[in-house]
Amino acid sequence: MQSSMSRALRCVSRRAGVAVHTQATRRTLSFSTPSSASAVILNSTRRQYATSAPDPATLPGLDASKLKVTLNEKRSTPPPSSELKFGSTFTDHMLTVKWTSETGWGDPQIQPFGDLPMHPGAMVLHYALTAFEGMKAYGDPSGRVTLFRPDKNMERLNRSVARVTLPTFDGGELIKLIKELVKLDAHWIPTEPGHSLYVRPIMLGTQPTLYVGPTNEALLYVVCSPVGPYYKTAIKPVALLGTDKYIRAAPGGTGGYKVAVNYAPAVVPQMEAEAAGYDQNLWLFGPEYQLTEVGSMNLFLVLRTKDGATELVTPALGDLILPGVTRDSILAIARGHASGKAPIDGLPKDLVVSERKIDMAEVKQAASEGRLLEVFGAGTAAIVSPVDRIGWEGKDIMIPCGEDGAGPVTKTMLREIVGRQYGRIPSEWCVVVKEGEA
Amino acid sequence: MQSSMSRALRCVSRRAGVAVHTQATRRTLSFSTPSSASAVILNSTRRQYATSAPDPATLPGLDASKLKVTLNEKRSTPPPSSELKFGSTFTDHMLTVKWTSETGWGDPQIQPFGDLPMHPGAMVLHYALTAFEGMKAYGDPSGRVTLFRPDKNMERLNRSVARVTLPTFDGGELIKLIKELVKLDAHWIPTEPGHSLYVRPIMLGTQPTLYVGPTNEALLYVVCSPVGPYYKTAIKPVALLGTDKYIRAAPGGTGGYKVAVNYAPAVVPQMEAEAAGYDQNLWLFGPEYQLTEVGSMNLFLVLRTKDGATELVTPALGDLILPGVTRDSILAIARGHASGKAPIDGLPKDLVVSERKIDMAEVKQAASEGRLLEVFGAGTAAIVSPVDRIGWEGKDIMIPCGEDGAGPVTKTMLREIVGRQYGRIPSEWCVVVKEGEA
Repeated sequence: MQSSMSRALRCVSRRAGVAVHTQATRRTLSFSTPSSASAVILNSTRRQYATSAPDPATLPGLDASKLKVTLNEKRSTPPPSSELKFGSTFTDHMLTVKWTSETGWGDPQIQPFGDLPMHPGAMVLHYALTAFEGMKAYGDPSGRVTLFRPDKNMERLNRSVARVTLPTFDGGELIKLIKELVKLDAHWIPTEPGHSLYVRPIMLGTQPTLYVGPTNEALLYVVCSPVGPYYKTAIKPVALLGTDKYIRAAPGGTGGYKVAVNYAPAVVPQMEAEAAGYDQNLWLFGPEYQLTEVGSMNLFLVLRTKDGATELVTPALGDLILPGVTRDSILAIARGHASGKAPIDGLPKDLVVSERKIDMAEVKQAASEGRLLEVFGAGTAAIVSPVDRIGWEGKDIMIPCGEDGAGPVTKTMLREIVGRQYGRIPSEWCVVVKEGEA
Repeated sequence: MQSSMSRALRCVSRRAGVAVHTQATRRTLSFSTPSSASAVILNSTRRQYATSAPDPATLPGLDASKLKVTLNEKRSTPPPSSELKFGSTFTDHMLTVKWTSETGWGDPQIQPFGDLPMHPGAMVLHYALTAFEGMKAYGDPSGRVTLFRPDKNMERLNRSVARVTLPTFDGGELIKLIKELVKLDAHWIPTEPGHSLYVRPIMLGTQPTLYVGPTNEALLYVVCSPVGPYYKTAIKPVALLGTDKYIRAAPGGTGGYKVAVNYAPAVVPQMEAEAAGYDQNLWLFGPEYQLTEVGSMNLFLVLRTKDGATELVTPALGDLILPGVTRDSILAIARGHASGKAPIDGLPKDLVVSERKIDMAEVKQAASEGRLLEVFGAGTAAIVSPVDRIGWEGKDIMIPCGEDGAGPVTKTMLREIVGRQYGRIPSEWCVVVKEGEA
């Protein structure tokens, strides 16, 4: 495909508006940055290009005060909560904001949910220039609505979009807009225990060209989908298939970003794991079969160390690991407990928290010595998902889950995270969208 | 995200129509199959699922005889050929065909080019379930129109779509449909030397769900874009930046398939290469800095061996290398020459053809000994693209390109491929869409 310096210069100088937002983006990089820190480099590359471009400060940034609302006159009735299927029901409204490299961010629109007109040559369709977030709004019977650490989602989305040449934006403005959307469709939030409104911000590169390069047009939008609890009744442990035939991520790739390209390649491995009698892939990497993630969740293990302490282990961030919000929250709670500053009932007194490499040889040895106490996945959808079995080398490594379906650390983390999500446990992480009626 | 065996079984049994086409797909796998051969495994997984499903033979396959044509009443005037910009002008018509797991392939439609209605939850937007092809239709002033090895594109598209859970199809039927589309818009094909009509078949997973799994709905479509020659005037060699900070592909990944997920991650590295004064990335892999591809082209090198022969080297197929149609054609021409069965004027008599690993240490050594004769990229857009410089470890490795901008093997291959594309050199590779007027 065609490529030349002049073409690149033209593209980038046209879209120099990006530079307006680089400072905000760079600030966020202190949060869980993969070692490659490619967002920093991208921004520095952009600044380099931008020296010959018009002043980027003249292009408008994302501005929630410019919101225009068009109400849906054909509102739907939310289905009964018992009939919800993950991600297939959408609320009455959606938020859309257009961006071009010539004009910057346009006026945000809340409008009736409906089809997007899509040029058949839009870059997102051909080259997957797209990144997204997964977050939830939580409701209770009083009508109170909360979000959980939305700033973390905004930070990560800014990192992700930059990795695929999409424009960055002011995360605080997008949170304001999401609050407006959630308030408008608040009656769609199921209030049964464990239910919530899944909120999906996403940005697409929409320039209509078959040329492979940075996009000059983008669409940011947010849709909402009411969802039931991950576990309909009791917690049910899942079985993982140790997977080394396929990879989820590799050094120099995009595994540390929430971009669409990480997902399509994972569906066939998931189908194969299910055909083999397992629920999810345990993604292994390299000649030492390093453990990385579980399906589309971060991975945690609880080990008894050789000197008798209890170690909570999760793989360190980097190109192989998505910086998950639930992951970060679990680590913060565990470290607060371990340091003695914020002790948590149910966590072991001698807890040690480690972000480090762990490979299958260590897991096998710990299991054979009775030191593999718990394994769980962590993510926005399931919160925590206990594991009772890992298929590896034709055998199953068994993990005790007890009568409750989850070990004590797993169960405690579930309780502590859920409590903060709904605001029952006070924390700075809970952001109120709307107060309930007394 | 949610996942369970029962959900997967339901998904796959619903879309058992796929199995109708597996035989055709499997037959094609003898062409340039990456070692992982995951398409075979996917089909076998599908058959495994399908045992409990209704007879897939009852679902309709892709059928060109069911084509419906709606003419565009607002036709555009093709722009002057001198003003064409790669991939940004589209012809008056496009081909679309819908598929669902319940109903199989629908009736193909040729219709006025225009926006596609896209559900905001369509899987392609969130998880990049999409694969495509790049091919060209060639015209001459008599009105004759040809395609080049379209069967190869169909084989590869069938492999690519299966890798991202999209339905396979009868490639012969799609070629018939593409011929109809190209005939209808034949006046859009620029006939100046080196010009052509770029034809882009693409398939999207369109099921509206935020669930990560195989799609139950898909859209196959084809758009056409008139394009100028890659080199506007004389051949101009390009400079490559040896790139090890980012990867294009990795073992266990999708580098051997033409899927959208390979492209988005490559744009930032391309911008960085351009900012450093190079044209394209030379994608290196692993601790030995193995050479893999050039930008989005396959890579060829011409070396003088230590015993004085001339070796044409390209990296062997596998997870790191896309099985390119131009790559395959160059190898076939070179092997025909080397075997003495089809000697080519301009190729060295002592030519040896190798598909093998080659790393930067070997390239550096060959260059320092004056044995690195030529380097070129090969792909549908540029055909061949000579390289005169490789940036590596802060220095430039220079490659002689002579006064013509390309060495003898590069120039000869360009002539031989172009001759077959337009049918001036008779071959089975040239497929006539429409005869010219005498």
